[in-house]
Amino acid sequence: MQPRVIQRILGLLLMVFSFTMLPPAGVGWFYGDIGVRPFINGFLVTLGTGLLLWWPARHNRRELKLRDGFLVAVSFWVVLGLFGAIPLALAVHPHLSITDAVFESVSGLTTTGATVIVGLDRLPKSILFYRQELEWLGGMGIIVLAVAVLPMLGVGGMQLYRAETPGPIKDAKLTPRIAETAKALWYIYLGLTVACAVAYWLSGMDPFDAISYSFATVSIGGFAPHDASMGYFDSPLIESVAIVFMLLAGANFGLHFYAIRRRSLRPYLEDSEFRTYATVLALLAVIVVGYLYLNRYFGSFGEDFRQGLFQAVSIGTTTGFTTTSYHHWPGFLPALLIFASFIGGCAGSTGGGIKVVRFLLLIKQGLRELHRLIHPNAEFAVKIGRRPVDDRILDAVWGFFAAYVATFSLIMLALMATGLNQITAFSAVAACMNNLGPGLGAVGDNYAHINPVAKWLLCFAMLFGRLEVFTPLVLFTPGFWRR
Amino acid sequence: MQPRVIQRILGLLLMVFSFTMLPPAGVGWFYGDIGVRPFINGFLVTLGTGLLLWWPARHNRRELKLRDGFLVAVSFWVVLGLFGAIPLALAVHPHLSITDAVFESVSGLTTTGATVIVGLDRLPKSILFYRQELEWLGGMGIIVLAVAVLPMLGVGGMQLYRAETPGPIKDAKLTPRIAETAKALWYIYLGLTVACAVAYWLSGMDPFDAISYSFATVSIGGFAPHDASMGYFDSPLIESVAIVFMLLAGANFGLHFYAIRRRSLRPYLEDSEFRTYATVLALLAVIVVGYLYLNRYFGSFGEDFRQGLFQAVSIGTTTGFTTTSYHHWPGFLPALLIFASFIGGCAGSTGGGIKVVRFLLLIKQGLRELHRLIHPNAEFAVKIGRRPVDDRILDAVWGFFAAYVATFSLIMLALMATGLNQITAFSAVAACMNNLGPGLGAVGDNYAHINPVAKWLLCFAMLFGRLEVFTPLVLFTPGFWRR
Ligand SMILES: [K+]
Ligand SMILES: [K+]
Repeated sequence: MQPRVIQRILGLLLMVFSFTMLPPAGVGWFYGDIGVRPFINGFLVTLGTGLLLWWPARHNRRELKLRDGFLVAVSFWVVLGLFGAIPLALAVHPHLSITDAVFESVSGLTTTGATVIVGLDRLPKSILFYRQELEWLGGMGIIVLAVAVLPMLGVGGMQLYRAETPGPIKDAKLTPRIAETAKALWYIYLGLTVACAVAYWLSGMDPFDAISYSFATVSIGGFAPHDASMGYFDSPLIESVAIVFMLLAGANFGLHFYAIRRRSLRPYLEDSEFRTYATVLALLAVIVVGYLYLNRYFGSFGEDFRQGLFQAVSIGTTTGFTTTSYHHWPGFLPALLIFASFIGGCAGSTGGGIKVVRFLLLIKQGLRELHRLIHPNAEFAVKIGRRPVDDRILDAVWGFFAAYVATFSLIMLALMATGLNQITAFSAVAACMNNLGPGLGAVGDNYAHINPVAKWLLCFAMLFGRLEVFTPLVLFTPGFWRR
Repeated sequence: MQPRVIQRILGLLLMVFSFTMLPPAGVGWFYGDIGVRPFINGFLVTLGTGLLLWWPARHNRRELKLRDGFLVAVSFWVVLGLFGAIPLALAVHPHLSITDAVFESVSGLTTTGATVIVGLDRLPKSILFYRQELEWLGGMGIIVLAVAVLPMLGVGGMQLYRAETPGPIKDAKLTPRIAETAKALWYIYLGLTVACAVAYWLSGMDPFDAISYSFATVSIGGFAPHDASMGYFDSPLIESVAIVFMLLAGANFGLHFYAIRRRSLRPYLEDSEFRTYATVLALLAVIVVGYLYLNRYFGSFGEDFRQGLFQAVSIGTTTGFTTTSYHHWPGFLPALLIFASFIGGCAGSTGGGIKVVRFLLLIKQGLRELHRLIHPNAEFAVKIGRRPVDDRILDAVWGFFAAYVATFSLIMLALMATGLNQITAFSAVAACMNNLGPGLGAVGDNYAHINPVAKWLLCFAMLFGRLEVFTPLVLFTPGFWRR
């Protein structure tokens, strides 16, 4: 542990982050909002705190060690989540409690997109823009986390993506790798955002909405500047654009990188995670559309298809945009969609959930166990593509799954102890841990009316989900703090 | 695969099983019931079918191979479940559909104890006795399955209990071991039943109830000859007796064996599974009693303690006796109790659920993954007691857990597709897969009023839970049927 180095980094982080409160202030000034001041104050407080942290530690330029990585990753979301809440807490309209401000901020930065605000359409543009921006920044953080940090830390089997460095590496130096990998992928992230915004604009959104929705789409965040979410436009064209960019944003950004460099679609077709991702979403869409049609829910196949496909992709990728109140859909559809969000996006994307590659590994391992029962003496290697996967990685994936289920169950029970009913508690934890957003029951439309303790618990759920459970859990082990 | 040998065994099994329909007929005759005939007819049909199966294959006396073990284990519960339903389907009172008769029979033989019958107090004694007897017989089957069959088959890591035979064994011959181990443990099972019946009788039950309840207690079944279950007696003494015998029946029968042979309680104290079992149940009881007391649910601590302790042990061991409508208890208590039933009884007991030893291994493996993140190069062995556990067993336990969760989710979604609401579907699958019995929502009191498709799905859930998921799953793999 190198507390001074971490202090220096957090200070820098806050100073950089403080500047993200200026664009919303600019938006507010441009639209003549009443709400510019909270952002200026938020900027000053965050910048000042960052400066105070950074100044005394500014000469501690040693490189990060493995353990520091865990602390920095968790601090990133916790500290920014708290400071990001400042403008929301200071704003007069909406009038949010500290709890609500933190919930909204954490929800944005973790790209969950669960909101406690009702009446978005009447809010100042500055606030609306800030919420979208938080998601977009959170998405940038996730790209680094998923592609550069977690593989180095070995969390939940993600050393799978560290295949070029053979074997577990001793206290690897994180900094150069983060910078180099992150830069390439951020360009892709930025490019996707621009392309998405332009496409939305060409499809009929005004520039403000086009930028706002593109932030929430590419980050798989799902915040919207309108209460009706994507349903506000009632436009099949806009929904089609959203589907395409949600699918792209839910895929491994490393694949986009290779596809661009090689100018070929083959990296997608050759990647077994991507194939599984496409298969799962297609299957989900078929079931949802079919069930809606059999129940004649919207009255025409066209409408069943349109709504079913959009919701399947939006929930399946854990984006969480809605075009309709899917939590009122008949039978098992709401529960099915919530279950699908557990699979979530691909590793190395901004999507949430358990991640497709882990889901794939769990299935392959399950099949291996079945084979082993029939052939107790044979050896079966679990493979991804043509490469056998190391036992250590498989252990980590099993462990991740069990820890995910355990965390889910405990938070669900705790929510029920605060008075939430079972459906609300179940869907709220799922929607928050999977960084999905909209739930069922009392949190079907928003999270405004649940009790404050439940909101704090759900902040934990969002952070645990986003940080892949083990990253924050490690901090709770005594061994982590021992020399 | 040796179809003729399996046919011979199933024939023998049915012939033996047919005789279990005579005691209920005797009970009916003794009490002057109207319902003797269905049992006589059931006896004749079952005996006849058994004879027809056995006769042409009677010379195929070869020993069972590994794969045959899976088929025999599954057939045992499926075939006996179907034939066991005959007297229930033939009876005039209660008037059950085929679906209901099979559900009740499977529920008995898997020691689930979920019932579709309302108005037990008005039923003929023969039917009541038969239901209890089915559970008791099911319990005998489970002892063999858990102690002799599953360890040999290696299902779900249960080769843990095959420690004395080093390494995976090649097509082990099952027969001699089953007979030898089963005999010793059946004596214990029988002894526990007699002791339990006598204790119930001395505590104030009439002889019929004493025997009936002892059958359901020692088998962790939970059927009762009264609608009010254990609450019929409203007797703290009887409930105390029940608690003691539920605790004993939920422990590994191998421990009882060693304790009796050594005339010492040390085998219990030295067994880490038993210690975890006791800890989990104690913790559960403390939370339940404490929460009831804080909510002043029964108005006095004495009553909160009595009801809370009984329900914690009854649900925690997966027995499923009730003294009160626990599904109406406040807040998270009903969900907590259902979650606790997932942990279930000890391996080698008649209890259901995932089993305490697997739960313990999952926790230890989770902790190992945490340690590995901090110390990527160190080697940690997961140990039970002082013995390190083989990686192959750990894989099997992870796999078991994932398969359990997957099966649970799929059946839950399927139930919701048949029209059950989420709470009912969730608790019904949990209560059936964990072989617990009573659920929440529409299945809080009984399973009479859900649709037939749901009942069949729940029969599957009971069988999958009882056969530890992998045993029936193996039969669905093409590899199993290939030479
Ligand atoms: K989201
Ligand atoms: K039971």
